[in-house]
Amino acid sequence: MRHLFRCLVLLALTVAAVPARAQLQGEYPGLETGKMWTFDVPPLDYWAKRYDFRPAKDWLDHVRLSAVRYGTGCSASFVSPNGLVMTNHHCARSCIESVTKPGEDFLSDGFYAKTREEERACQGLFLDQLQQITDVTPRVMKSIEGAKAEAAGKLRSDAIAAIEKECQGDAKDRACQVVTFYRGGQYKLYTFHRYSDVRLVMAPEAQIAFFGGDPDNFTFPRHDIDMSFVRAYENGQPASTPHHFTWSPAGTKEGDLTFIIGNPGSTGRLNSMSQLQYLRDVSYPSQMKALDRRIETLEAYMQADTVKGKAYRNTLFSLQNTRKAIGGYQTGLLDKELMTHKAQWEKEFIAKVNADPALKAKYGRAWGQIATVQDSLAKTAVRRRYEQFQTDGGRLLPIGSLFARYPSEMAKPDDERLPAFKEANRKQTEAIMTGGQPMDVALETANLATYLEAMAAELPATHPVRKAALGGRTPAEAAKYLVENSVLTDPAKRKALFEAGNEAINASKDPFIQLARVIDPLERNNAKFIQRQLDAETAASEKVARALLAVFGNGVSPDATFSLRISDGQVKRYPLNGTYAPAYTTIAGLYDRSQSFGGAGPWALPKRWQERKPKLDDTTPLDVATTSDIIGGNSGSPVVNRDAQVVGLVFDGNMEMLPNRFLFTEKAARSVFVDSRAIIEALRKVYDADALADELQGVKAAAMN
Amino acid sequence: MRHLFRCLVLLALTVAAVPARAQLQGEYPGLETGKMWTFDVPPLDYWAKRYDFRPAKDWLDHVRLSAVRYGTGCSASFVSPNGLVMTNHHCARSCIESVTKPGEDFLSDGFYAKTREEERACQGLFLDQLQQITDVTPRVMKSIEGAKAEAAGKLRSDAIAAIEKECQGDAKDRACQVVTFYRGGQYKLYTFHRYSDVRLVMAPEAQIAFFGGDPDNFTFPRHDIDMSFVRAYENGQPASTPHHFTWSPAGTKEGDLTFIIGNPGSTGRLNSMSQLQYLRDVSYPSQMKALDRRIETLEAYMQADTVKGKAYRNTLFSLQNTRKAIGGYQTGLLDKELMTHKAQWEKEFIAKVNADPALKAKYGRAWGQIATVQDSLAKTAVRRRYEQFQTDGGRLLPIGSLFARYPSEMAKPDDERLPAFKEANRKQTEAIMTGGQPMDVALETANLATYLEAMAAELPATHPVRKAALGGRTPAEAAKYLVENSVLTDPAKRKALFEAGNEAINASKDPFIQLARVIDPLERNNAKFIQRQLDAETAASEKVARALLAVFGNGVSPDATFSLRISDGQVKRYPLNGTYAPAYTTIAGLYDRSQSFGGAGPWALPKRWQERKPKLDDTTPLDVATTSDIIGGNSGSPVVNRDAQVVGLVFDGNMEMLPNRFLFTEKAARSVFVDSRAIIEALRKVYDADALADELQGVKAAAMN
Repeated sequence: MRHLFRCLVLLALTVAAVPARAQLQGEYPGLETGKMWTFDVPPLDYWAKRYDFRPAKDWLDHVRLSAVRYGTGCSASFVSPNGLVMTNHHCARSCIESVTKPGEDFLSDGFYAKTREEERACQGLFLDQLQQITDVTPRVMKSIEGAKAEAAGKLRSDAIAAIEKECQGDAKDRACQVVTFYRGGQYKLYTFHRYSDVRLVMAPEAQIAFFGGDPDNFTFPRHDIDMSFVRAYENGQPASTPHHFTWSPAGTKEGDLTFIIGNPGSTGRLNSMSQLQYLRDVSYPSQMKALDRRIETLEAYMQADTVKGKAYRNTLFSLQNTRKAIGGYQTGLLDKELMTHKAQWEKEFIAKVNADPALKAKYGRAWGQIATVQDSLAKTAVRRRYEQFQTDGGRLLPIGSLFARYPSEMAKPDDERLPAFKEANRKQTEAIMTGGQPMDVALETANLATYLEAMAAELPATHPVRKAALGGRTPAEAAKYLVENSVLTDPAKRKALFEAGNEAINASKDPFIQLARVIDPLERNNAKFIQRQLDAETAASEKVARALLAVFGNGVSPDATFSLRISDGQVKRYPLNGTYAPAYTTIAGLYDRSQSFGGAGPWALPKRWQERKPKLDDTTPLDVATTSDIIGGNSGSPVVNRDAQVVGLVFDGNMEMLPNRFLFTEKAARSVFVDSRAIIEALRKVYDADALADELQGVKAAAMN
Repeated sequence: MRHLFRCLVLLALTVAAVPARAQLQGEYPGLETGKMWTFDVPPLDYWAKRYDFRPAKDWLDHVRLSAVRYGTGCSASFVSPNGLVMTNHHCARSCIESVTKPGEDFLSDGFYAKTREEERACQGLFLDQLQQITDVTPRVMKSIEGAKAEAAGKLRSDAIAAIEKECQGDAKDRACQVVTFYRGGQYKLYTFHRYSDVRLVMAPEAQIAFFGGDPDNFTFPRHDIDMSFVRAYENGQPASTPHHFTWSPAGTKEGDLTFIIGNPGSTGRLNSMSQLQYLRDVSYPSQMKALDRRIETLEAYMQADTVKGKAYRNTLFSLQNTRKAIGGYQTGLLDKELMTHKAQWEKEFIAKVNADPALKAKYGRAWGQIATVQDSLAKTAVRRRYEQFQTDGGRLLPIGSLFARYPSEMAKPDDERLPAFKEANRKQTEAIMTGGQPMDVALETANLATYLEAMAAELPATHPVRKAALGGRTPAEAAKYLVENSVLTDPAKRKALFEAGNEAINASKDPFIQLARVIDPLERNNAKFIQRQLDAETAASEKVARALLAVFGNGVSPDATFSLRISDGQVKRYPLNGTYAPAYTTIAGLYDRSQSFGGAGPWALPKRWQERKPKLDDTTPLDVATTSDIIGGNSGSPVVNRDAQVVGLVFDGNMEMLPNRFLFTEKAARSVFVDSRAIIEALRKVYDADALADELQGVKAAAMN
């Protein structure tokens, strides 16, 4: 899960959006778009039919108020009446870093505040508890009535800002957000109670929280205890949180119903076929090729220089992890059964729209409009790939572009500048231009060479970027020439150039600055082109969304938008590589996996876990697989049973879940959570954190009654 | 591994054979056809280059004489000077059954002879120790000189029988076998010392030897202790076996060189492209469809009737296991990279043949001839699928065919009858006709219905078998009609019909007997047709084999033929489903996997393993993955290090090894063996078999010195 969210951001542009998708859940037709239900439209009949469970309003309110959104990217929950909050270690990472003082290393050693006085305030962290959901669709829709596609964007965001501002008023402990559903089919105002004083209570060693590292990320069977605890304070006191999840005394067994309550970040399940095809045929193949190039180059470098190479191990793991994620999405798009089903569903959906003259008139052309956008994007994709600065060709061209643009951008008024050069970002940009470590010339040259090779294979010989970059040389020669003749590899020389002033920069013949000057106007044109396409796509997508609601109602779950959802599922084994992955791992499996790899690398165990092994009950369930539906943003979500008791803590999905970004199935896709029993076992027997375990299990509270 | 060999037999016909294949081992071109080296042509230069290891003749002789072939399907080795032999539990299964007396259940409980007196003689078991290899190619070749393809088969087998008979003489403790290499390119006489008095020493519970059952079969990470021990006796005394493998004191670590010595059963790596394409496009898809039909039908049946369904759990696992194996072979054939490489290699091979006028004249047309055979087989494949009795349509048609044929076959002289009706097999056939349990009518009907559905989809409406089977009904109706109107479901009624005599049988209007009468002549014609195709294929394959030897020499490893081979490799992790499978599992992993599945089904642990858990060192390596090259028949092979010391006991390969049947790679394909350290840990701490462990580790021998 850790990297899911990062990938989401990367993909946000390409994942744009739209309508409806279909799946193998014939028995429960509502599942065509997955199970990320909103609290204002809970699927009570579906739950009753499938699990014989029909929660009352009280249950839903309690569950909603016990969950919190954690900062800007994670989920969490209250787990005691005194503001105690459970989330993932990887969510709390920046909090942990922010409370670390010189001489301390809580990431390596872990942290535990034995008393409340020892709890340390996290910098900049807030928790949002969802109080109210109000439908503001008519007001938002009205704001763009009759507007053209290119004007609608601004009108809509102005209307949304006004609604949010009205809601916010002067309240400091309130947060207001208009959330988009169905890609513009609905807009809802989410009003939160915001907790801004949040303090760190407990975090284990990063090594056990991210055991197996990037290799094991997205996989199952898994062996992580990716937990941490913080506490919400109000008026300097632990917040009173009557709505919180109590701890399950028994945990789950295979087959048990699980609910995951959290904030899934982004899915593309309402994408139309043409959008999926664009991703499958244009966007992902090119991203994967670029990643493969970088991975291959880095591996060769690391083999050639094993000493220097060691420093790049994490970079390599991280690249492989991103490659794994995109490969996983692509697996779904390449699955003939899934795509055929989706195509059939879309065909039937369009037929229903066209069968109703009113709907046909309003929405009938939307799919064609979306397809036209994909077509325009596809036709220009190869060229645009090289008419930009953020490439896989190394760090020199992006830095060159900052120099090429700096003098002219700085001459403009602030609101006309490109984002990097606005006053708000200027310091950071200048730091990039003038700072950092000297570059690894060999690695920069190698990365650039493979990039130029790809360029030579894909761009026509007449293309100005190719001409400027290669200058008649072979890709390998050109890479060597460019890097050798650039001052940008050396931060001291870069700083000198910067300090020499704009005239000197404009006069610079540095090859990367010169190349950037060639790309600059092309990149600006492309940016405008892309914006036009996105505007057109958004407008058409809204039509498809409204058609969806007109045809199916809002019984289908909307795409994820980092807003609070509740997702049902069951603890369940699944087929894996010829056999079954069990629904559970146990603590014995943690030791097995570490021993299997000689206790080395990402599979090393923290010292405390080595020493305490004899004390632990190694039959304790550790990580669990369930069919509840999540995606990046759900990190830290509680897993609860029908009695709203905590049975676990979500931290990842398996490989087989990656295709669910676009095409939902339950066949082998699983959410992965830390078992509540492992949390208690670890707190009591590894971390000597009985007070915290007692607070979770309500032991003291019981004694005080 | 357990089921690999079973599948080999099933596939023997389709795997026919021929020439040369190619692979990704650019660095070691000899590896194009894998690493199943014979002892008369050890790849000394390759071993020296790759591992800096060049064994002397003594080493090779010692290793060869320490290994034995176990019965007719397994491998084994001497592991003490006193005739002690190590093999797999699944190899010793029939021995174990043969020594079991009423009231005993050694498969469930395990067996251990504390003293030699308690060792029990296995029925019909023998061990063959390879003494000598003699090239008899010229003599075999001479026997078929100038003969036509259809006559060559008999001439060749007569010549081989004569050679074997000469070698055998009157010796009782000798076995002689002419082994075919390179699909007829070479013939070698293998002379063995045969041990015919073999007694059971130790076998653990089947549950731990086959932990994980069919689901975990062919997979890794794995957790089996698939071992057993027998002892060779001569003249009533333990055999003196100076050539035996001693026990490694340290075992392996990742990266260590391993040799596996054993008898791989059958590979098709010398198949030509047209043969692989036939398997990929015709044979396997149809086998997989048939298996899928049976699996789907059985699963539906088991879901509909969970009580009766339980009895079919093992049948389902077994079907799934076969499906897994064939799916695995097909994965390789569908791998574009592997197949492109193979095609390129064959193209270059043919070009080399054609570049030499003498070779071209002798062998140049062979590939075309093989392709013609595949073409003939492919063109008739659909029709032939339904013009036979061994189908996936249930048990009634095969039994019907015995009744349909019985009267006319019995009227013939013995040597003209079909095999099932020869005097030697007659009793067994009659038992099938008249015995067994009453059939499960619902399941028979369901299986027949899906079979008839496939028939209706594939055969033209005019085909006599379709007309006879469906009779104008829908497949479901026809299945119901046929089963309801047949007496063959009831053994008592079958017996009555049989006992009424041939006239009554010939007069029977039983629908399955009638249907069988329609198929009978078609099936006989097909059998002749197939024999002609196989004769032609064999003749052409021999030409390709001789061309291979002429062009490449015998530095490429020949296809497996259940003859003794030695295969190098290294203990090595591999990429699996987004992360790595470790090179090792440990005993902790065994307990984890059992706990993960709630200790149920194929993952239940024997009582002894539950009780002794606290005594065991759970860091002990359990099962290991190595790149040595094996296939079914290698079961029970010893794994030894450079010092010819035992480091393990082979029992299976992983899923990724299945494609190696045709297309060899080392990328993720792994042989799986029990670690020698786990064997000792289990013998001493679970089975209280210190005497046996001492014998393996040479403890007593040392004390006696």
